[in-house]
This record gives sequence, structure tokens and C-alpha cells, in this order.
Amino acid sequence: MNENILGLVAGGITSVAMLPQLLKVLKEKNVEDLSLMMIIVLIVGLSLWVWYGVLKDELPIILSNAFAVLVNLALLTAYFRYREK
Amino acid sequence: MNENILGLVAGGITSVAMLPQLLKVLKEKNVEDLSLMMIIVLIVGLSLWVWYGVLKDELPIILSNAFAVLVNLALLTAYFRYREK
Repeated sequence: MNENILGLVAGGITSVAMLPQLLKVLKEKNVEDLSLMMIIVLIVGLSLWVWYGVLKDELPIILSNAFAVLVNLALLTAYFRYREK
Repeated sequence: MNENILGLVAGGITSVAMLPQLLKVLKEKNVEDLSLMMIIVLIVGLSLWVWYGVLKDELPIILSNAFAVLVNLALLTAYFRYREK
């Protein structure tokens, strides 16, 4: 398989991976079993992947990780909003 | 910063990102708020990243995603074990 297509597919899948979790949290408004540390570490790590992608000029890495950062930022916001309950 | 060092740091961080979540689940034995779909999609996507890393011969991508696959497989096992409760 062509590397770039594979990268786009892999990037597409991992960048949407946290979406079901975000939707579940927004729907059920429960974050008790979620690890805050996981969310924070993911945001830091994924941001570094974006930087790596920029340096290596690899668009699949940049796009997929940038999208995943956004999803995790939304999850972080939801976490603090629903943790109060 | 050197690309490969950045890649190793980014890979190291994202590969340990799910560990706090796994440890939390193992400790509290609660998976109610976790999205099964997230775990499954992550395993598929991360596995494709390993393949991408192999094709591009980029060790940081291979190692970090392979480790993350293992952590998510453990999380999947824990999910099915504790979902019964």
C-alpha cells in the first residue's frame, strides 16, 4: 500500500478515536471513570507529534494529530465541567 | 530540536498516555464511563501507524505505537472483565 495513503488512513482513524469517548461524555455527563492524567498527557504528546510532523513535512502526521489535540481539548473542557457533579 | 529526538519524546509521551487510564481502571474496576468504541478504534488506528512506521522506516513511530497498542489491548481486556459488574 502507498505510504501516504496508509498514513492518511491511520491518521484518520486515530484522530477520530477519541470522538466516541467525547460524545459519550457529552451525552452521559459522567467523567468519573476517566483519567484526567490520560487527557493531559495525550494533549502534550499529540502536540509534540504535530511539531514532529511539521519538521518532517509529513501532512498525515500534522493533520491527524492536530485534530486529535482539538478533540482532547474538548474532552478536557467537558471533564472539568462535569467533574463538579 | 533534532527531529528524531523530538519523535522519540513525542512517541514516548503518547505511548504512555493511556497508562494512567489503564491503571485507574485496574485500581477502581469501573469502566462504565469508558467508550468501548474508543478503545477498539485506537487499537486499529495505532496498528496502522505501526505499519506506516515500518514502511517509512521510522523507529519512533513504530515503537511508540506498538507500545500504545499493547496498553490499549490491556485496557480492552480490563473493559470486558469489569463491564460485568
